Parts: sequence; C-alpha cells; structure tokens
Amino acid sequence: MQHYPKSIRNLIQNLAKLPGVGEKTAERLAIHILRRPQNEAEHLAQSILAVKQSVRLCASCYGLSDAEHCHICENPARDPAILCVVEQPADMIAIEKSSAFGGMYHILGGALAPMEGVGPEDLRIGELLERVTSKGIKEVILATGTSVEGESTAAFIAQQLSGSDVRVTRIASGVPVGGDLKYIDKMTLKCALDGRHVL
Amino acid sequence: MQHYPKSIRNLIQNLAKLPGVGEKTAERLAIHILRRPQNEAEHLAQSILAVKQSVRLCASCYGLSDAEHCHICENPARDPAILCVVEQPADMIAIEKSSAFGGMYHILGGALAPMEGVGPEDLRIGELLERVTSKGIKEVILATGTSVEGESTAAFIAQQLSGSDVRVTRIASGVPVGGDLKYIDKMTLKCALDGRHVL
Repeated sequence: MQHYPKSIRNLIQNLAKLPGVGEKTAERLAIHILRRPQNEAEHLAQSILAVKQSVRLCASCYGLSDAEHCHICENPARDPAILCVVEQPADMIAIEKSSAFGGMYHILGGALAPMEGVGPEDLRIGELLERVTSKGIKEVILATGTSVEGESTAAFIAQQLSGSDVRVTRIASGVPVGGDLKYIDKMTLKCALDGRHVL
Repeated sequence: MQHYPKSIRNLIQNLAKLPGVGEKTAERLAIHILRRPQNEAEHLAQSILAVKQSVRLCASCYGLSDAEHCHICENPARDPAILCVVEQPADMIAIEKSSAFGGMYHILGGALAPMEGVGPEDLRIGELLERVTSKGIKEVILATGTSVEGESTAAFIAQQLSGSDVRVTRIASGVPVGGDLKYIDKMTLKCALDGRHVL
C-alpha cells in the first residue's frame, strides 16, 4: 500500500470500508477507477453524494424515497386498505421483487429486542396504529422476520390491534419452494405441518 | 432494482461497473453507503475524484505519481544506474512489495503484441533508449512478463540495446518458491533446469 501515491492510498482506504471489500479488492477497484474515463469516476462520485442527499424516508410508509412520498404510496393502482408491516426497507424490496403484493407497506425500522434495548417506542408501532385507525385499513399483514424478535414483534402488534376490527394476518412459515424436506430444520417442519391446508 | 428510488438505482448501476461487483453486490454496497454517516460517503466520493485529478504518470519512469516525479525517482537512496523495465505500474508495485530491488524503474505501458496492433512505437521503448544513453545507466533488468508478449518485448529491447555497453539482464524463470515440482508446467521446469546455478 505504501508504494502507491497518497491519493490512491486514500481511495484504497475509503473503498476498504465497504462491506466485503478487503484491502486487495480495494486496490483492484482503485486501479480500475484510475484507468476508466474521468466522467465514469465523476458519475460514481456524484451518485454516492446524491444518494446521501436525496434519499429520505417516505412520510407515510417510512420506506426509502427520493420525494416526500415513495412511488408505492403514490401509486393509485395499489390497494390502500391493506398494509404489509415489515422490519426494514430491504424486506419491502424483497416482497416487491416477488410481485406478490399489491397493497401498501409500513416499515417498522427494526424488531423488538429487549436484550438490546429496542422497545416498542424505538419502532414505528405508534405510527402504524395511528395509520390503521385514521386511514381505514382493512387488513394488516405482519411480515416481520421469522426470528424470535420478528415473531415477538408480530405478536406485540397483533395484541395492540386486537381491539380494533382490522383483520390481522401473519405470513406463512413452512418449507421453502424447491426445499428438500430432509434438510429442513425441525421448527420449520412443525410450522409447515401446523399451517397445512386442504387441497 | 426498479423498486428502489432513482438515486439508489443510479448508485447501484455505477457501482456495478466496478470489476467483480455484480448487481447484488452493488445493491448491498449502495445500502451500506446509505446507512453510513454523511462524511464517510463524502470522503469516498472525494477520494474517487481526487485520484482522477491528482494521479499522473511520473515524468521519468512513467509510474503512478501525485507529483511530476514519483517518490521512487525522487528518492536519493535508490541507485539511479540500475533500471528495472516492467510492463505496467502494477508490476512495479509488486516488485516494490518484495523489497528486492533498490534501483529505478521504467514502465513501458504494455508489451509488444503485433496481433493486437501494439508495436514498439506504442510502448515507451524510445523513452527507455533515450534514458539509458543520457542518464548513464549501467544495467537494464528486463522484468516484463513471462508470457509470449513479455518475452518478445524483452528480446526486442535487448536487441535494441545490444550495441551499447550497458549490461542487459532478464529476470529468472523457474519454480516458484514453495512450489511443488509435480504441479509445475513443462515450460517452467525447462526454464528452471536451463537456469540452474552452482551451489
């Protein structure tokens, strides 16, 4: 590293802070950037700054957005009466990629984790309850993770909504599509059996 | 990808142009950048721009440099009478990392490849010959690659320098240190035998 000019060393150090990028990879990336045309490097640098400047949380669902409301909340074709509750924006993206959902989202910003000091007030649960009552939501799909934290978050929200007449559902747990039963863990198999349905 | 706001899509596309970075990795890097503090993203963006602005080729050896002359050419402790000729700046860095050489470098900018239209005039061979005669060089170590192109480039330069009284040497080819003989290719073994020396 010390054999490179200072500006390259600097770039290598900054690139090496990215996840999964070690010093060797950072070196390769830096040399690549050095070799590519000026405008390509400028576009990369500008897009890094732009993402920090323009991305904010959507005012209704708290997903990633360039504007006050995200393109999903702004989309009139989507059903505003069904809310899918997820932990993180990445979970919302994953569900969007599946094209299996046509309603709106609500991003909690995490899951309940008392051991790490994450309580209900640290998540957007209050905002969810407010939204459910004020926006005429008919169904809340709890799509938090299937970890202990995700399950307890789902249970907590279900309990909070138990007094209202909104339908509260939980995504199914079971054997992944294409999964081989002999490699599936006991808990998942139990979920798959408990959640069996008539064909 | 289309589920992300435009600025994130843009960053993902620009990151995916880096070598070894696919769309999935680019997505992960973009989300990482989004989560990190503003100043970390700024440092990364600025170092990308800085590397393009400040890095140029050293006026004597044509290695990577922040100034007119690189830190190796400027170093009075190095022997200016021995020139190590390499194809690319990366080769120079590799030799520097080995700490096995205390002279100066000359970077050709490639190797002769007639099939791809790379002739002597496309490399810094003229500059090398000029440097050898004008700077009182005593030894030229040809450290071009051991590929066909590297070998023919070394042979060509050796021929060009054959009239002068400078000592022209070629780096040794042979079995890598720690290499297992049974996995070494025939050509390398032949080189190792041809290049044997008295113990």
